[in-house]
Amino acid sequence: MRPTPHRRAAYPHTLPIQTRWHDNDIYGHVNNIVYYSYFDTVINQYLIAAGGLDIAAGSIIGLCVESRCQYLRAVAFPDALSAGLRVVHLGKSSVRYEIAIFSSGSDEAAAQGEFVHVFVDRATNRPAEIPPRLRAALQGIST
Amino acid sequence: MRPTPHRRAAYPHTLPIQTRWHDNDIYGHVNNIVYYSYFDTVINQYLIAAGGLDIAAGSIIGLCVESRCQYLRAVAFPDALSAGLRVVHLGKSSVRYEIAIFSSGSDEAAAQGEFVHVFVDRATNRPAEIPPRLRAALQGIST
Amino acid sequence: MRPTPHRRAAYPHTLPIQTRWHDNDIYGHVNNIVYYSYFDTVINQYLIAAGGLDIAAGSIIGLCVESRCQYLRAVAFPDALSAGLRVVHLGKSSVRYEIAIFSSGSDEAAAQGEFVHVFVDRATNRPAEIPPRLRAALQGIST
Amino acid sequence: MRPTPHRRAAYPHTLPIQTRWHDNDIYGHVNNIVYYSYFDTVINQYLIAAGGLDIAAGSIIGLCVESRCQYLRAVAFPDALSAGLRVVHLGKSSVRYEIAIFSSGSDEAAAQGEFVHVFVDRATNRPAEIPPRLRAALQGIST
Repeated sequence: MRPTPHRRAAYPHTLPIQTRWHDNDIYGHVNNIVYYSYFDTVINQYLIAAGGLDIAAGSIIGLCVESRCQYLRAVAFPDALSAGLRVVHLGKSSVRYEIAIFSSGSDEAAAQGEFVHVFVDRATNRPAEIPPRLRAALQGIST
Repeated sequence: MRPTPHRRAAYPHTLPIQTRWHDNDIYGHVNNIVYYSYFDTVINQYLIAAGGLDIAAGSIIGLCVESRCQYLRAVAFPDALSAGLRVVHLGKSSVRYEIAIFSSGSDEAAAQGEFVHVFVDRATNRPAEIPPRLRAALQGIST
Repeated sequence: MRPTPHRRAAYPHTLPIQTRWHDNDIYGHVNNIVYYSYFDTVINQYLIAAGGLDIAAGSIIGLCVESRCQYLRAVAFPDALSAGLRVVHLGKSSVRYEIAIFSSGSDEAAAQGEFVHVFVDRATNRPAEIPPRLRAALQGIST
Repeated sequence: MRPTPHRRAAYPHTLPIQTRWHDNDIYGHVNNIVYYSYFDTVINQYLIAAGGLDIAAGSIIGLCVESRCQYLRAVAFPDALSAGLRVVHLGKSSVRYEIAIFSSGSDEAAAQGEFVHVFVDRATNRPAEIPPRLRAALQGIST
């Protein structure tokens, strides 16, 4: 059964996404794996800019423990896209995001998915509490 | 809740997977998106070799409509991996696979996921019945 | 011997380049291979937008026969970059581009390179004369 | 002028290279950028296995300062390839490699290129002398 496309207005944070030549695969559309690179990008860009995550040297890092995508409508380079991001569950050390990819001018998602981060201590790899500034940023896009 | 790792013996088809330098991300492990490139590879390699799929010029092509992965244990270049593949649902024009990624010497999946193909006519993009040879190959790894 | 960085003003066409999370490799900077995806993107975006190249169905396609890059200064996600493009040789069926990658706010290239396209007939794979509209676009950024 | 393809016998070290589904681009062949991921892989796999390079925690790391590739004949997923590696210049802290990519059963390179590593101290980013074990490994494939 075809899922209902998410609407742009349901996403409190959006980021323009630039497609690249090699995003397209042999069938001429953005390959399924590439959407996950859009997910990673909108998420981490937000964590860095709004939440102060320091990916190079910070004491905590976010590890992906689950991801998922439903592909509703094909997109292709050189389309201009945008990615919507929202938080649907915020735990002590983990967060579940939903992400949707929109074509320029379209209000309905071309693809939508989920992504779960567990924050861990960079040195010990043990789950770590989400620090206040990062938590505030995540709360800011919670729905 | 941590999912139960799949066992190697539960997968009727396996393919060795070679890691690449840039599979690793800044945190030193295979990036979450790269697992999907392993999925794509074990699936299409099997469809081509066992099912006669002609990705360059065949009249039907397989489009991914959904994918998903659970990451259980980190792996990293230059690890030697293998990918297990099985079919868990075979419809008229669609197929749902499960895929698991194993480290060398380990019997438990480091990651496991799902991937759904809908086969369509290359020209019209309409769902197309899975042709007999391809169907037989998919039945051969059904569980 | 360290090459002299190209200047931004020497490039008649530029395109903003969005970095992605997985552009960074284990050493925390954009991996060397990723710069070539920026090259491919600025070139093909220009050929499509200014030259009318139809990558999905046009009768001619551009094949890369040579590429090269010098890496002068590291960049990293989430930097905002831009790519400069110019044509340094325009033949009957081939074109040699130079490309430079700039960090935001910097006038000196962080990386610079070359890329040679040979245009061929999509069906026969034989070299094909560059069509007038595409040629005009290439002449427009020749130096 | 078309370059002369290198011969397999001219390469003292070779590594099988597994192609992936998304190595192919819209034109149905391995995309030009992907060859550089083969280069990176054969080089680093050798440095790790033969030279004891510790990419996760070693005190020196290899940074790419220049790379180059000539594309002579198209290859495509699911081809089985192999990569040849040799050292053509070995300095105090830098090394220039040549790499060639061969199709299965072919003695002539489908692509060939160069890659220059400068080894630097991971912490200071200053050029560092190549340590003895790594140097011995590099000398072992010098021509």
